[in-house]
Amino acid sequence: MPSCRRFLILFALLFALPTLSVHADQRYVLTSAEQNVQRDSWKLSGGGWSVEKKTLHGGKQEGVDLITIDNGVLQIDVIPTRGMSIYEIRSGDMRLGWDSPVQEIVHPALVDLESRGGLGWLEGFNEWMVRCGLEFAGHPGTDEFEDGAGGTTTRDLTLHGKIGNIPASEVEVVIDSAAPHRIRVRGIVYEKFFYGPKLKLVTEVSVVPGQETFRIDDTVENLGAVEQEFQIIYHANFGAPLLESGAKVHAAVKSLAPMDDHAAESIDGYATYLPPTAGFVEQVYLVEPLADENNRTGAVLHNAAGDRAASMHWSTEQLPYLTIWKNTAAREDGYVTGIEPATGYPYNRKVERAAGRVPKLSPGQRRQFTLDIGLHRGEESVKTVVDQIKSLQGDDQPKVSREPPQS
Amino acid sequence: MPSCRRFLILFALLFALPTLSVHADQRYVLTSAEQNVQRDSWKLSGGGWSVEKKTLHGGKQEGVDLITIDNGVLQIDVIPTRGMSIYEIRSGDMRLGWDSPVQEIVHPALVDLESRGGLGWLEGFNEWMVRCGLEFAGHPGTDEFEDGAGGTTTRDLTLHGKIGNIPASEVEVVIDSAAPHRIRVRGIVYEKFFYGPKLKLVTEVSVVPGQETFRIDDTVENLGAVEQEFQIIYHANFGAPLLESGAKVHAAVKSLAPMDDHAAESIDGYATYLPPTAGFVEQVYLVEPLADENNRTGAVLHNAAGDRAASMHWSTEQLPYLTIWKNTAAREDGYVTGIEPATGYPYNRKVERAAGRVPKLSPGQRRQFTLDIGLHRGEESVKTVVDQIKSLQGDDQPKVSREPPQS
Amino acid sequence: MPSCRRFLILFALLFALPTLSVHADQRYVLTSAEQNVQRDSWKLSGGGWSVEKKTLHGGKQEGVDLITIDNGVLQIDVIPTRGMSIYEIRSGDMRLGWDSPVQEIVHPALVDLESRGGLGWLEGFNEWMVRCGLEFAGHPGTDEFEDGAGGTTTRDLTLHGKIGNIPASEVEVVIDSAAPHRIRVRGIVYEKFFYGPKLKLVTEVSVVPGQETFRIDDTVENLGAVEQEFQIIYHANFGAPLLESGAKVHAAVKSLAPMDDHAAESIDGYATYLPPTAGFVEQVYLVEPLADENNRTGAVLHNAAGDRAASMHWSTEQLPYLTIWKNTAAREDGYVTGIEPATGYPYNRKVERAAGRVPKLSPGQRRQFTLDIGLHRGEESVKTVVDQIKSLQGDDQPKVSREPPQS
Repeated sequence: MPSCRRFLILFALLFALPTLSVHADQRYVLTSAEQNVQRDSWKLSGGGWSVEKKTLHGGKQEGVDLITIDNGVLQIDVIPTRGMSIYEIRSGDMRLGWDSPVQEIVHPALVDLESRGGLGWLEGFNEWMVRCGLEFAGHPGTDEFEDGAGGTTTRDLTLHGKIGNIPASEVEVVIDSAAPHRIRVRGIVYEKFFYGPKLKLVTEVSVVPGQETFRIDDTVENLGAVEQEFQIIYHANFGAPLLESGAKVHAAVKSLAPMDDHAAESIDGYATYLPPTAGFVEQVYLVEPLADENNRTGAVLHNAAGDRAASMHWSTEQLPYLTIWKNTAAREDGYVTGIEPATGYPYNRKVERAAGRVPKLSPGQRRQFTLDIGLHRGEESVKTVVDQIKSLQGDDQPKVSREPPQS
Repeated sequence: MPSCRRFLILFALLFALPTLSVHADQRYVLTSAEQNVQRDSWKLSGGGWSVEKKTLHGGKQEGVDLITIDNGVLQIDVIPTRGMSIYEIRSGDMRLGWDSPVQEIVHPALVDLESRGGLGWLEGFNEWMVRCGLEFAGHPGTDEFEDGAGGTTTRDLTLHGKIGNIPASEVEVVIDSAAPHRIRVRGIVYEKFFYGPKLKLVTEVSVVPGQETFRIDDTVENLGAVEQEFQIIYHANFGAPLLESGAKVHAAVKSLAPMDDHAAESIDGYATYLPPTAGFVEQVYLVEPLADENNRTGAVLHNAAGDRAASMHWSTEQLPYLTIWKNTAAREDGYVTGIEPATGYPYNRKVERAAGRVPKLSPGQRRQFTLDIGLHRGEESVKTVVDQIKSLQGDDQPKVSREPPQS
Repeated sequence: MPSCRRFLILFALLFALPTLSVHADQRYVLTSAEQNVQRDSWKLSGGGWSVEKKTLHGGKQEGVDLITIDNGVLQIDVIPTRGMSIYEIRSGDMRLGWDSPVQEIVHPALVDLESRGGLGWLEGFNEWMVRCGLEFAGHPGTDEFEDGAGGTTTRDLTLHGKIGNIPASEVEVVIDSAAPHRIRVRGIVYEKFFYGPKLKLVTEVSVVPGQETFRIDDTVENLGAVEQEFQIIYHANFGAPLLESGAKVHAAVKSLAPMDDHAAESIDGYATYLPPTAGFVEQVYLVEPLADENNRTGAVLHNAAGDRAASMHWSTEQLPYLTIWKNTAAREDGYVTGIEPATGYPYNRKVERAAGRVPKLSPGQRRQFTLDIGLHRGEESVKTVVDQIKSLQGDDQPKVSREPPQS
């Protein structure tokens, strides 16, 4: 190395070091396929907060990674092994999550998405939030599309896509040096195949110490050289105790439609929930949300007493559609509702494409998706967040279809 | 805690403690998804007996758990990773087991049940006893059933179901404090899916020190809130040296039928075995066993000399059907016979349902299945157990169908 | 033991021992399902060479074994977990390998060969050389064949077969005691199923210290008792920097045909390569190579300048067919060409069987396949190896079909 170049580097370091010591965020690599790193257990603690990683053992969860962020008021479980899904959020007597019949956090190696006629995804489904996508995100069945050579080809899609069953290749924890010292868990999940999509999901779950809110901040990028369709549904699922008889969901509704004839029958009561009901058949409602001048919209689920609620806020520019999935079956079978902001509805991609709800990414293009989630305690607090939703609705009457969309 | 309640608990403990110290069974948790436990290696020894767990390594068996119970005369290999199947029982010059072309104990993560047109189960098939079931247990192919909404739906089933390729979630070893100090290896295997069955299998393999018999004691429970069909076949497989030219199977037969036209051709010789025969095509026979006044029945397989035998005894209330699978192919291709007590026959579930052989469990309902297996040495011992079977038959003539059942 | 026999053994040992001490090859077992051995990391070094094994971590490569042979001039990565495929060969500024969109070395437990309509193999495809086979090696789709009972049966085959996604059961490193002290990495991969093929692949990658060549030496054996079809394609893949605009492939061609109409359009330029071209659709050419009097043939790929080349030589008795796969897509989508000596072409086995290109192994029969690979630097060296190919061609005019074979 020429000595002048050495000198320049030394010179640069002299100036860089103080900067680094003051402003550098703390970064910790927990998993890296690039660097051949996999930490089985790890913990970092600060004043009143901690981030801990452990490896799960036993049965179907053997070898699954779990990261728990504790910001003093919230404990958030992130599952790197399952596409950075979020298992549960706990806060005192509240939790975001549900009691799925699937109790372990199942390793993707034991999930066969093709099984049960393309419903294999359900064998691992128990998270508070699992992303559906990225190549396809909806119902199983045969998609038909142009093959790029003038003809058409078909493919049997599986339920909700692959991203929720792909282990994250890179996982790191970042602690912001600047106040409010946000704690970030970042993961990179690749849905890349030869002769297939080359999609990169960079996802971050972050929280500020002491706050009862957290943020999901995702970027989807097309690493391929040709235009690529994609779909993403944020399948966020809520069970007891928030979900109960008389619980209610609030959204600002431009349009509302039932997904099928069965849902159509109960559309008048779409916003309220039954108690656990053995034999209940799922009801799915399709919503185009209203947004404010900054394209912000939201949804709130609160309990019967109206003193506990969870809220989600997002941009309709990013996620223009919302699906409300009501599955108030018996507790043993999964008593749960999904509030699912998305790029489209959960029909098969064939239907979504025909309806113009399958976005595309040009080579190198990125799209960002941000969700802000809040927990709310006390009637006042719940009323405040519900009123925000009501003010989005204002005097606009929802356009309600009493029949499913024709497709 | 109110002090009177404290007092009551203390009072209870004072009486309980001596009892516990004398009678408490020893319990050792080897695997627990609930407690996040997975012991890679473990051993417990007593006077002339031991229980040892190891983890298998290399190739397709990497990470597979194996528990060997040695009661001084029998060594029994249980495979928690493969649904608590039993790999082999060894006792001096005898063994229950066979030489499958599949030589490693294959990790379920490497088995694709959907492969080979639904025959993927065969990629891991080499156990002495593997349970088929629990949602479905028979041949692959399209099942058709009511969808609960007035219509019918179809599903492509895979051979012999999933339970044999699901890792046990909980595994413990229990040593009875009371004589005869039975040694028990218990496992819990969940076959639970969202929008699918919620079945729990609690299985126990147990043995008394010094005895040449052991017991399989299983309970299947419907944890769901709606009625659930299930099927179970105890696919017990015997190869050399017990199986050989001139070996013979004895059962008490109410009715006997060939499973297909090929088996029909050889029905007169159903009870005797050929030597290893290259190109042999499997023959399957369907038996309704006769039982005694306590519903007990059994089957015995003995060698040509009649001085080595294995017996199985069970209740026809629990397992009313028996399948005898003859596969006396070349040793290289798997020289083996199956003696398979079951809730039905191994036809596709569609056929079984139509024939009334698919039982149901109401919510919370349990069904128990107990099998007693014995090893017998010497002509006298073999004659005694064969005579038991003959006395079950008594003067009743088996009703033999020379053609397969119409379905 | 009779004392005379003891004496004979002692006598034999006396003579054998010095021989052993001088000539015994060094053997190191790295993986053995038989011996329950799995070494996570291991290294052996000699004068200027080394063999190192590590376990990969993170994302989809968690738990994958990688062995790197360094003979002083070549570094060869062998992947026991993926059927002993060869990931990459590095030598100074040269490498054999390519930049697949699949970047991690994916664990087979995460690959579902049945997915994407039988194209799941592509989810793990990034090796320099992966074997296709052994039961079937070509394109997915429905095969139809005799069922052994006078009828015909069908099976949906998956792309390129299973062997590349089966972990090796036995892996050892052998250092020859005799000069030139060849370094050998041997693996045994079983593709054995009950009611399926019983094929054993013994594979060896070997190299002499200091040489810029290496050898692949495989034996496929039918362990079953009945005749067994098999197929093998050595899918060797080359990307940048060797592959570039103006790179060229040389083969001695008896006959040449395009695989489909699309390839037919460009058959005149089959031997030269485009730069990375977004949206390029693969072109596949089918070659029957000419060979010398010892049945030796070869193929050479060189860069545009003609000063870097890779060569492969083999016997047309062992591998009578050669496929040239041109996939000069954008770098992001996989810029690569395959030079693939094989027992047949990559059509579905149904087509291959009808064309007489599916060999059979009788019980116990073995077939050997040897490939010699060389790296060539400098115009002289490249010219020499290209001239060898040209001399094989001599004055024989290639028989070129301008249309794909009728099948």
